[in-house]
Amino acid sequence: MKVQEVHHQTRRVLVVVCDKGEEAVATIGRALTAQGVRSGQVTAVGGFSGGEVGYFDRDRGDYLRIPIGGQVEVLSLLGDVAERDGEPVLHVHTVLGRPDGSTLGGHLLHGEVWPTLEVVITEVAPELAKRVDPETGLALIAAAPPR
Amino acid sequence: MKVQEVHHQTRRVLVVVCDKGEEAVATIGRALTAQGVRSGQVTAVGGFSGGEVGYFDRDRGDYLRIPIGGQVEVLSLLGDVAERDGEPVLHVHTVLGRPDGSTLGGHLLHGEVWPTLEVVITEVAPELAKRVDPETGLALIAAAPPR
Amino acid sequence: MKVQEVHHQTRRVLVVVCDKGEEAVATIGRALTAQGVRSGQVTAVGGFSGGEVGYFDRDRGDYLRIPIGGQVEVLSLLGDVAERDGEPVLHVHTVLGRPDGSTLGGHLLHGEVWPTLEVVITEVAPELAKRVDPETGLALIAAAPPR
Repeated sequence: MKVQEVHHQTRRVLVVVCDKGEEAVATIGRALTAQGVRSGQVTAVGGFSGGEVGYFDRDRGDYLRIPIGGQVEVLSLLGDVAERDGEPVLHVHTVLGRPDGSTLGGHLLHGEVWPTLEVVITEVAPELAKRVDPETGLALIAAAPPR
Repeated sequence: MKVQEVHHQTRRVLVVVCDKGEEAVATIGRALTAQGVRSGQVTAVGGFSGGEVGYFDRDRGDYLRIPIGGQVEVLSLLGDVAERDGEPVLHVHTVLGRPDGSTLGGHLLHGEVWPTLEVVITEVAPELAKRVDPETGLALIAAAPPR
Repeated sequence: MKVQEVHHQTRRVLVVVCDKGEEAVATIGRALTAQGVRSGQVTAVGGFSGGEVGYFDRDRGDYLRIPIGGQVEVLSLLGDVAERDGEPVLHVHTVLGRPDGSTLGGHLLHGEVWPTLEVVITEVAPELAKRVDPETGLALIAAAPPR
């Protein structure tokens, strides 16, 4: 366990509204870069007309790709932003709802927005950093020890 | 994409605890009105004894209604509040868990609380506004451009 | 409904990164105790290699235990912390994703972290208190009335 305690005064909030037809991951990334937010907490609701989610396969060391397969409600989109090599890296997972109320979900690889995606990004700290985990090749948050 | 950057000083937090038998959407709405919160981010966990979730059907331009069908865990309730015509409009999606761990979800139309629903509402900005989208008839957040 | 309005100045944020093999509930609890956070809002994403979720059975007055059954994506982990008898009590629900994108979820009883669990804990107020509900035996948040 690594814990980093952050005091409140440095936080900002971005409200990002993705338009119809925009791809969610790229759009949120553009907003982060434009506003200079490099670490934070992300939540969103809305809808996707398509896209792909991923499941990290330990044996292959890569994501299995799962097609979203039609219009879905974005029931939950949750995750964080941290910095790797000076750039913001978005890590978000999503749960999606089909017409019968059944769900599917995974790591969001890409999602085509329809009719909207309402994203709230709360800046946590400028200094959260990702490092590459040698076992998995994934970039994971490396929080500083408590002070 | 529309981005609105909000600075922190204006935010408040409401902790709303819904009692057994209360309807969640109406109860959260009453708390928003009573405290004068017109925009924010909403998260909750708890349980429902019944209710309905919705899936927005593009062809019909309306929500399909899906019954919750018995006691469920509220695994996730996530969304936002924005203002339309001077009133707070709640937009929340939910994922619900059945006794065998299977899930269902959708746009929360109404949910009967049992035994509790613990809601945290973080005020984002007084000025987030919804506008009606002509294509869908839905009220969507119309964030201001970055300043 | 009980509503407690909290003003912003007292909030802190903890970023807790659970390492491979750590148990999530105990690890988050240790971080709360170490940093003296007794009430707040919790969100997380990451992965579990196993564990159990629960569904509260009204008739039995206890949780049904549902095994997680293999490596899953933690699509959503959401909940709160409140104080009972001077100690922080964690109440989190989770939605988990399998290799085919199907989901399961419940009240998180225990989860074995792999490869990471990135947790953000936002302190809400020092004074949120749980009380034991006589009907269910559960410790529920008892928010103060609005002032």
